[in-house]
Amino acid sequence: MFEKEYDVIVVGGGHAGAEATAAAANMGSRTLLVTMNLQTIGQMSCNPAMGGIAKGQIVREIDALGGYSGIITDKSAIQFKMLNKSKGPAMWSPRAQNDRMRFAEEWRIALEGTPNADFYQEMVSGLLEENGKIVGVRTSLGIDIRAKAVVLTNGTFLNGLIHIGEKQFGGGRAGEKAATGITEQLVDFGFDSGRMKTGTPPRVDGRSLDYSKMIPQPGDAKPEKFSYLDTQKLTSQRDCHMTHTSALVHDLLREGFDRSPMFNGRIKSIGPRYCPSIEDKINRFADKDSHQIFVEPEGWNTVEVYVNGFSTSLPEDIQYKALKSVKGFEEVKFFRPGYAIEYDYFPPTQLRHTLETKLVDNLYFAGQINGTTGYEEAASQGLMAGINAHLKINEKEPFVLKRDEAYIGVLIDDLITKGTEEPYRMFTSRAEYRTLLRQDNADLRLTPKSHEIGLATKERMQKMEQKEAQSDKFIQFFRKTSFVPEEINPILESLDSSKVKQSDKLFKVFSRPRVSMDHMLQLESVSKFVDENDFNSEILEQAEIQVKYSGYIEKEKNNADKLHRLENVRIPENFDYSKLKSLSSEAREKLKTIKPVTISQASRISGVSPSDISVLLVFLGR
Amino acid sequence: MFEKEYDVIVVGGGHAGAEATAAAANMGSRTLLVTMNLQTIGQMSCNPAMGGIAKGQIVREIDALGGYSGIITDKSAIQFKMLNKSKGPAMWSPRAQNDRMRFAEEWRIALEGTPNADFYQEMVSGLLEENGKIVGVRTSLGIDIRAKAVVLTNGTFLNGLIHIGEKQFGGGRAGEKAATGITEQLVDFGFDSGRMKTGTPPRVDGRSLDYSKMIPQPGDAKPEKFSYLDTQKLTSQRDCHMTHTSALVHDLLREGFDRSPMFNGRIKSIGPRYCPSIEDKINRFADKDSHQIFVEPEGWNTVEVYVNGFSTSLPEDIQYKALKSVKGFEEVKFFRPGYAIEYDYFPPTQLRHTLETKLVDNLYFAGQINGTTGYEEAASQGLMAGINAHLKINEKEPFVLKRDEAYIGVLIDDLITKGTEEPYRMFTSRAEYRTLLRQDNADLRLTPKSHEIGLATKERMQKMEQKEAQSDKFIQFFRKTSFVPEEINPILESLDSSKVKQSDKLFKVFSRPRVSMDHMLQLESVSKFVDENDFNSEILEQAEIQVKYSGYIEKEKNNADKLHRLENVRIPENFDYSKLKSLSSEAREKLKTIKPVTISQASRISGVSPSDISVLLVFLGR
Repeated sequence: MFEKEYDVIVVGGGHAGAEATAAAANMGSRTLLVTMNLQTIGQMSCNPAMGGIAKGQIVREIDALGGYSGIITDKSAIQFKMLNKSKGPAMWSPRAQNDRMRFAEEWRIALEGTPNADFYQEMVSGLLEENGKIVGVRTSLGIDIRAKAVVLTNGTFLNGLIHIGEKQFGGGRAGEKAATGITEQLVDFGFDSGRMKTGTPPRVDGRSLDYSKMIPQPGDAKPEKFSYLDTQKLTSQRDCHMTHTSALVHDLLREGFDRSPMFNGRIKSIGPRYCPSIEDKINRFADKDSHQIFVEPEGWNTVEVYVNGFSTSLPEDIQYKALKSVKGFEEVKFFRPGYAIEYDYFPPTQLRHTLETKLVDNLYFAGQINGTTGYEEAASQGLMAGINAHLKINEKEPFVLKRDEAYIGVLIDDLITKGTEEPYRMFTSRAEYRTLLRQDNADLRLTPKSHEIGLATKERMQKMEQKEAQSDKFIQFFRKTSFVPEEINPILESLDSSKVKQSDKLFKVFSRPRVSMDHMLQLESVSKFVDENDFNSEILEQAEIQVKYSGYIEKEKNNADKLHRLENVRIPENFDYSKLKSLSSEAREKLKTIKPVTISQASRISGVSPSDISVLLVFLGR
Repeated sequence: MFEKEYDVIVVGGGHAGAEATAAAANMGSRTLLVTMNLQTIGQMSCNPAMGGIAKGQIVREIDALGGYSGIITDKSAIQFKMLNKSKGPAMWSPRAQNDRMRFAEEWRIALEGTPNADFYQEMVSGLLEENGKIVGVRTSLGIDIRAKAVVLTNGTFLNGLIHIGEKQFGGGRAGEKAATGITEQLVDFGFDSGRMKTGTPPRVDGRSLDYSKMIPQPGDAKPEKFSYLDTQKLTSQRDCHMTHTSALVHDLLREGFDRSPMFNGRIKSIGPRYCPSIEDKINRFADKDSHQIFVEPEGWNTVEVYVNGFSTSLPEDIQYKALKSVKGFEEVKFFRPGYAIEYDYFPPTQLRHTLETKLVDNLYFAGQINGTTGYEEAASQGLMAGINAHLKINEKEPFVLKRDEAYIGVLIDDLITKGTEEPYRMFTSRAEYRTLLRQDNADLRLTPKSHEIGLATKERMQKMEQKEAQSDKFIQFFRKTSFVPEEINPILESLDSSKVKQSDKLFKVFSRPRVSMDHMLQLESVSKFVDENDFNSEILEQAEIQVKYSGYIEKEKNNADKLHRLENVRIPENFDYSKLKSLSSEAREKLKTIKPVTISQASRISGVSPSDISVLLVFLGR
């Protein structure tokens, strides 16, 4: 059935698999997406939302690189919020609620519109390997499909085991079969594998809820969007609602703790720390007698509701009894109970920066198989794996993003350098240079790089260039144009900011903390310049951020430059650490396992101390 | 989780389950739909089309009764055709191609919009029975949900076993799990069960086909629609395409016959005779070296294509090799291979006319579980089971449609009286009174009956009454109004119909074979009357049919009346056939098994002869 060899095979059609397929295909690789069910491509397995703190930045980065997650999110959004708008722009984080069905459908349409992307529905049960190199996959029907590279994005499906209270059964998601065969084969190849756990809350019937007892959580009055391309902003939105658990709810939940697979040892693997189950929260924060619950609609038309904050694997009767005691849920009807799922993952220290495995050439891992959690983390890994699979089989340089270039760079570097013992989730705090890694400048940071390797389109590049040129022009205007004190002082006075005595450049007064672009626009010279140049709100925002945060930005750039010097000190691939006697034995062992490619990466390995780095630097002649 | 008892529980969310849920809920029963996957409610498992010969009539009947299939079909249609338009109106059969995703989504939205309908996702693995009466279901998690009545619509899921070539694996549909537990329990209750088989063709990538080598099959220039309510007619449509198999294709398929589960004995059960697999067609019609293939798009936006006419369970490599040799398929890419599936069914002679089982009270079966095939057959059974479950638990009279009232009546009477050894499909030839059972008058036939029991809405009833009143008025006009020969003769001449010499009623000349409504409208008196009364095309059509076919209609009505006399001779429920020595032993045995409720039903049992009927009539005092 598959006579010709594919360039790239992607196994799995979730966020990671869909992005990997799109990236490889759009770069020119003949790509085959193999999934157990073509109707579940782009399925949001857990909450119907994209973005959020640090995650929103990742979606913007995916979009800047030419991935599809931002576009799909915009097309299927039912609510948009820019989180942290009261903080500095490094913290601004876009988040959207989505129509679950629309999201999946838009992904399907987008992928079908990708000329080099083919599709095949069946379970992949094995990998074809020859001389340490992957050469294709084998399906459960026994069909061999050959390819130059394979990207595995199996999500929670590998030997997936679902837990609800004392019951457990195989499955990749509620109502779907688990996938088997791949883990066993990878272990035969020599890979380490482990188990992780994640969970999901009950889905309930919105018609059974009393929203009048909850606090509405509307979207932004002026909703933004994710993609740097011309997607539409929302003109109407659906509200979420907030409610809370109570001491009573916690007591009711505790009644099921002895039957909880989390507490009675049946679930052995570790779940996502920052997305804990409600029983976990009660257990860990015993002093708190209330936790927030966000009631999220699943789409424009459906009455199905996602109970965010109430993830649980307690027995279904306990789930029900407790949820009924939450304000607004007194008459709740369940669509399905929450559950926990355990699945196989492969410690990501077994990967290169390209997400290619170290053990088997041309085999790439992306998403939960690498021990991460989150749609955005998965999607970005899929994108990078798809890109690098294409580049590798075309004998081109790998595409690796540095820690000061993208959250995606931080994510992958963390994974392959530090590994992870629990589902890894992105936070702004994981990034050393988060003032550089803002959601507003992902295009400026990444689109040129992606255009250079042939992924980001000319259209994308031109939009970015125009934005860059216009913002620069505007910033230069602030740097060169002077104000007269009579004009600016009334504004400063109104802001309780000290008045100026003599004329100076606009840049200077604009840098003051309380002075915003809105104030600057009150000056005739500024508003005239904006009108003449037809600057849109994006340009105003970009110029404002770059002017007002220029000091921070400059400082972080300098820090990053220092890092780059270490980054440029490469360690030979098969470097023999055993001959460096002055290394600590822990450092030696870790360095042998992780095989860092630069001194900088070596320095981030836990257990490798600054003195170990000095030893290395001396030996490498620096 | 389920404290309160439901009125009706429906197991399964396909065509039968969805209609059963809607009907019971809309009549006022608190109804719970339990399905293994809420995301697959209203899924079209096989071809993306509704209606067709006899089946289109059924969909119109469902709509007339207040079911949803017609509305959903209209909302998700991508093409509409009135089949058999060149034949008499009894043969006119509406058919639509549908957008598979839209169809399921519209069903989901429709059901969610039904206030009394609740939803729960889980496998039902058992039934709760007390003293010969059903009282609820048990889920795979062990949750007991109590109800006054249960409707089983398990489709192909009960112990489903999928075959492709020599491989076989459990599953309810490709990529979905089988359901277990129910069959075993029903057998314990004393039910007979059997196995049936059905199949589906490969799905392929439309981008890989060369449509220029095929024959376009566009929809009607003036598309009609299914629902009698105000749904929209299509303003744009997608084409299907026709191509053919060849001797070469057949030879290639034959190469796999020794590995075919159909021919090597692995599949023991019987498949749908009139929807045979391609290997079956080659086998049965060995002299034909070409069969038609219809290439049907799966929706507005998707490139996925359904290869109608190429259903097969041959090994996937054979499927591929053969399909590649079909004109236009030279470069075909598979989305998934075709397969056969075996599943449990229960011989429907175990049911009453209400679709309630004879063995267990308040337990209803609808759809493929009764040995039928086809979406329309399933949907109509679901509707009738939902209606009757509601009526029964409210101690109301059963709602049974007679053979001269609806195809649905024919369907159910055939099933429960004759049973079926192979998947039962509706045909116009199964109806004795098909001139009465037209697609144009399903509302006139059925809406009043459904309104009376509280299902068809007032809006529906008013629309029907207006249509009836207007058509009657128009027919009366033809009966009363006379023409003048000078006016009519030019028209008759143009039709090569003999001229009239003297004035007569319009009705008379309109009855002539070649004279159509269009001709009548050329008469000033007629067109003026139409304008004055603002008759729409539906009224013109209705009047035309009733005038031109009045003779046939009258005759069938008389025949039906005769039948009704036998229909009115009821046989007592526990009638002791053994005391009637003059019955043939075959008749005695069959009558004991089927337990017909009327002499008429008894007469339709195969093996019961006219002389057996005479014996019965004599005994019953007629």
